[in-house]
Amino acid sequence: MIEIKKINDLNYSEQKNLFHRYGKDYTSVMDSVIPIVNDVKENGDEAVKRYTKNFDGVEISKLVLTHQEIEKGFNRVPAKILDAFIMAKDNIEEFHLHQKPKNIAYTRDDGSRLGVIYQPVEKVAIYAPGGKAIYPSTILMAAIPAIIAGSSDITVITPPCEGDVVPDIILAICRIVGIDKIIVSGGAQGIAAAGFGTQSISKADIIVGPGNLYVTAAKAYLFSLGLIQIDSMAGPSDVMIIADEGANPKWIAFDLLSQAEHSEDAFSILITTSSQIAESVKEEISKDIETKTGRYEIVKKSVTENGLILLADSLEQAIEFSNRFAPEHMELMVSDPDSYLPKIKNVGSLFLGHYSPVAVGDYFSGTNHILPTGGTARFSSGLSVDSFLRRTTYQHLTGNALKTAMEPVGIMSKVEGFDSKHGGSIYVRYEEDQPDAG
Amino acid sequence: MIEIKKINDLNYSEQKNLFHRYGKDYTSVMDSVIPIVNDVKENGDEAVKRYTKNFDGVEISKLVLTHQEIEKGFNRVPAKILDAFIMAKDNIEEFHLHQKPKNIAYTRDDGSRLGVIYQPVEKVAIYAPGGKAIYPSTILMAAIPAIIAGSSDITVITPPCEGDVVPDIILAICRIVGIDKIIVSGGAQGIAAAGFGTQSISKADIIVGPGNLYVTAAKAYLFSLGLIQIDSMAGPSDVMIIADEGANPKWIAFDLLSQAEHSEDAFSILITTSSQIAESVKEEISKDIETKTGRYEIVKKSVTENGLILLADSLEQAIEFSNRFAPEHMELMVSDPDSYLPKIKNVGSLFLGHYSPVAVGDYFSGTNHILPTGGTARFSSGLSVDSFLRRTTYQHLTGNALKTAMEPVGIMSKVEGFDSKHGGSIYVRYEEDQPDAG
Repeated sequence: MIEIKKINDLNYSEQKNLFHRYGKDYTSVMDSVIPIVNDVKENGDEAVKRYTKNFDGVEISKLVLTHQEIEKGFNRVPAKILDAFIMAKDNIEEFHLHQKPKNIAYTRDDGSRLGVIYQPVEKVAIYAPGGKAIYPSTILMAAIPAIIAGSSDITVITPPCEGDVVPDIILAICRIVGIDKIIVSGGAQGIAAAGFGTQSISKADIIVGPGNLYVTAAKAYLFSLGLIQIDSMAGPSDVMIIADEGANPKWIAFDLLSQAEHSEDAFSILITTSSQIAESVKEEISKDIETKTGRYEIVKKSVTENGLILLADSLEQAIEFSNRFAPEHMELMVSDPDSYLPKIKNVGSLFLGHYSPVAVGDYFSGTNHILPTGGTARFSSGLSVDSFLRRTTYQHLTGNALKTAMEPVGIMSKVEGFDSKHGGSIYVRYEEDQPDAG
Repeated sequence: MIEIKKINDLNYSEQKNLFHRYGKDYTSVMDSVIPIVNDVKENGDEAVKRYTKNFDGVEISKLVLTHQEIEKGFNRVPAKILDAFIMAKDNIEEFHLHQKPKNIAYTRDDGSRLGVIYQPVEKVAIYAPGGKAIYPSTILMAAIPAIIAGSSDITVITPPCEGDVVPDIILAICRIVGIDKIIVSGGAQGIAAAGFGTQSISKADIIVGPGNLYVTAAKAYLFSLGLIQIDSMAGPSDVMIIADEGANPKWIAFDLLSQAEHSEDAFSILITTSSQIAESVKEEISKDIETKTGRYEIVKKSVTENGLILLADSLEQAIEFSNRFAPEHMELMVSDPDSYLPKIKNVGSLFLGHYSPVAVGDYFSGTNHILPTGGTARFSSGLSVDSFLRRTTYQHLTGNALKTAMEPVGIMSKVEGFDSKHGGSIYVRYEEDQPDAG
């Protein structure tokens, strides 16, 4: 069962396990993944189908579902379910519309014009994990920012479920956001198909969305070849809840349990300044697991192995600890949470107050749920409109402006060993010889 | 010597070589790099010094140079050289200050507050290649956006030159931008030292800057472990010049030559609608190489193997070709270049008009010269203030707003197999039981 410890009592190795929870070593996975990727590169559709048969036990007749199949699936989903997803879609759109950046443009006194133009990455592939669990919400989270960025060609990659079939709700969500291409093949072979393109699949420029170790390794490998952009490396999910004595222990317990519900390796951590809260939350968690309802076996293993209740001397100590942990999700269930914002760092998504459980962000509030895990929030961010934009800088110098640059560029380029043409390409415009290096 | 061809006459394999110029296969390099990285992880400073001795033939006494050594180097650089770099620094600062994004915050009708907070990635390492060529300008290009983003801890990684020495100009540039830590060790071992941290080197969260194949492989490997963020994969540099009949052939020739001056594998490509321009540029290039001055041997090999003059039927065809090539640098030497902007895609940095040669962007105009190579401009961007920022999304829902979300979240989470606690964590706040799945 979940343990209670004091932050001050954590030893070096306990801290290290929490703060450096990144990275399995991909070396051995890569050894399996690279031959699959190269096979798909060489043999296209045939290789993709072969691996899908071998790994998923499914013989797929058509690699890509199109408009008609998607329409049929959509029509089979009950209206009540569709309505829930459409309400969520509206909130996600609203939130992400705020993220669209404006081009930058300015003119210098010397008449030179400079700026930055934002353009969409055109070809997007979204990986939607399959198998027992399905994640239609992930398609919303990936597709909406891509559409707002202006990406014109969006494909979903997903493994087939039982039979040669993609679940109706996945089809329906594609229909709702306007995606009309679904690659029915997951794993490294699905990623490779989108990364290189095959006879029936067009090449993607960016592949996003969470997947298992093989999917993640294949994405990282294709990225390392300069073939595609990817979102951040996907690992186990986590939540860090910081609560003071005014928080409700049952609510905290349920929020931790909802994280544990994801998987056995998910981290569910509470830091509190109140030992009474700590004890009550522990009790609530035990009590709930004893009901043996829902996914209680996963939950039990998850909180026992990767759950933790920490006692802090102060909220400042709690926040400092969280800054080092770099949580994917952080709930701040304290009075006046806003006053702590300037001190909080390295969080994927922040849930403020008592009525913002992570589950509402997972589905409904509008923020993105594809977030940096494994402590990567120290240097990366959740999916956003930015993720699907590229920037082009530009400069349009006047003849006079370039002349001002002539001598300094000549000096700098010679320092760097470009003796002749870097400076020379400016001097030639004024029919001057570049002086020798000083 | 550089060849002239018609775009219409390029066969499939010629097109493929140009459009798919990404990616050496890193597999074999990775096999050398991973043991080095793991050795540094295990053995820290001792391993870094050992590899530097083996690979660079240099026994370094101190792995990290600090303030005093940097100050001394700065004092040895002639004022004229310093002045040139300082003028460049001012322009680079001006350009990048325009890139600083504003936080996003808004309130919904139901009282919920949502937004995005931008924060700096705190610990930055900049790789500056060494050996025969040195690139102090690259330190400006990486350090200035990081400083504007607010990164607090910036380190330079650079291999030692002859003797246990870092060139004065590198030290001086560090002094100018305020960097006071230099790791005197390059290659995979330098990257690993910054990626993991060692006894004398603090761990970085992001490592940027171009390097050779081993440096790039080490960066990609550490990225794949979820340890660091990196900029895009570095490959050979390229320029695409689009010129109409009004352009000056000698200026074009020098701009192509300045690209070829970089390295033998650099791509220097002109597309023109004028066969007269094509012929004249070819002649100017030949004439210049025959002078046998500067780096003419590198230049000759570069333009012969990777240079190309293409004839296009129209500027539209030229731009469409460039969009597929996705150049790092594009010069548009045509009348009224602005009118073509809406059609241009997938460019790292754009040089408009007749007085904007790439060399002025390399050093002086203010745009960043760390740009996407190898066609990665299709999905990635040059270094910018954004590269050193992370985003935290947040949501602060009111009790009423969460209640509205209760039913849809319950429905959606059950669809995804989270039967119990995702919806439950909302229902519990209203002391309601979650209904069974519909």
